[in-house]
Amino acid sequence: MNTLYVIGIGPGAYKKMTIEAAEALKKSDLIVGYTVYVDLIKEHFPEKEYMSTPMKREVDRCELAFEEAMKGKTVAMICSGDAGVYGMTGLMYEIGVRYPFVELRLIGGLTAATSGAAVLGAPLIHDFAVISLSDLLTPWEKIEKRVSLAAAADFVICLYNPSSKKRQDYLQRACDLVLEHQKPDTVCGYVKNIGRCGEEGHVLTLGELRETQVDMFTTVWIGNSQTKNIEGKMVTPRGYRNV
Amino acid sequence: MNTLYVIGIGPGAYKKMTIEAAEALKKSDLIVGYTVYVDLIKEHFPEKEYMSTPMKREVDRCELAFEEAMKGKTVAMICSGDAGVYGMTGLMYEIGVRYPFVELRLIGGLTAATSGAAVLGAPLIHDFAVISLSDLLTPWEKIEKRVSLAAAADFVICLYNPSSKKRQDYLQRACDLVLEHQKPDTVCGYVKNIGRCGEEGHVLTLGELRETQVDMFTTVWIGNSQTKNIEGKMVTPRGYRNV
Repeated sequence: MNTLYVIGIGPGAYKKMTIEAAEALKKSDLIVGYTVYVDLIKEHFPEKEYMSTPMKREVDRCELAFEEAMKGKTVAMICSGDAGVYGMTGLMYEIGVRYPFVELRLIGGLTAATSGAAVLGAPLIHDFAVISLSDLLTPWEKIEKRVSLAAAADFVICLYNPSSKKRQDYLQRACDLVLEHQKPDTVCGYVKNIGRCGEEGHVLTLGELRETQVDMFTTVWIGNSQTKNIEGKMVTPRGYRNV
Repeated sequence: MNTLYVIGIGPGAYKKMTIEAAEALKKSDLIVGYTVYVDLIKEHFPEKEYMSTPMKREVDRCELAFEEAMKGKTVAMICSGDAGVYGMTGLMYEIGVRYPFVELRLIGGLTAATSGAAVLGAPLIHDFAVISLSDLLTPWEKIEKRVSLAAAADFVICLYNPSSKKRQDYLQRACDLVLEHQKPDTVCGYVKNIGRCGEEGHVLTLGELRETQVDMFTTVWIGNSQTKNIEGKMVTPRGYRNV
């Protein structure tokens, strides 16, 4: 069996990768990924062979990884964050049925929900929902329904892909849906460039978030009814002090 | 300022820790945590000072960490998984207002939702909700509401603390709530002892999960309406193949 690693490299900084991920990259002959993430890894493993495909060429990228693994190379498919959260792992299993002689080995990484949370404080200490606002692969009506029901359930909500050039008002629309269930002073936060050069975290209210323009390198957290701003940090209590 | 690290050590295996977490533990004089996690770390850093408190003594544990940091020691408070997901980070900020000369530094780890997902396949490729079934700190009615609304929103659902000696039928009750919205053949999975000795993953249907007794070292995933069983793996597609 040929081994094909699917590796979450975390937010970007080398030391935020797991020890296992770094070891698997060292063992690999070829590293495959989306152009941006390949560039992040290249400086730490300059001696490896690299191949990349642009966004929207995910199927090609996965097939490329399997084909190269079939040639006997040890291949690593890399994703930012965790490869199992809006990443390539699912597609790799779907395509993998055609490559019975390649064994997938999944290696976890820090996904933005948790790595960005650590920049803001402690927003995810209680139940939470993770929702992507990208309607490239999901109907917007389904996204709206999830945002509404998550707010009705008083989940902390983490939003991936909150904005893009074509979707400049999506975050505002999501905030309006949450505002049907949560107060305008609900504590929220957003982080730009998590774990990378230019990292920037902001804690603000839901009312303020609604008026904020974020970019596609930003992740957003909307607190639940209990979330507090403690000295500028976003903190969701769990009730240990009431026991 | 004295430094107090709050470190997520991941599921347990040393190599599933981030490089940054291992570096921070090396720099620490004293490592504080819940007895079980302290024992996991001790073998890798035998030369350190250790202090632990049992479960339900979380406030004491946090105060202990701050008091020792005030003495000038570099202290690491460790949590399993990510310290920011049902972990100590929130309480550390709440208690930290009394210790203005101690600076918290948060270091992420793989939480069970993602580290266990990698054992099952790719359950979290689309929007998901994370819910703890423990009613020690949360009213059961609130937990029920969240499970119901998450199922109504067609989220993949990851359940932490699905069972304990006192709550043997909680997973069954959660499954019954999901069954009001999802079919009995919905693909589910559970993993026992993620990243530790005795790790065991199982993929099964929601109907079968309802009849399964799990223990407190188990995490559960309930698929959405699209989740598939691909050669024994739990896979939630994202629609890349339809683009």
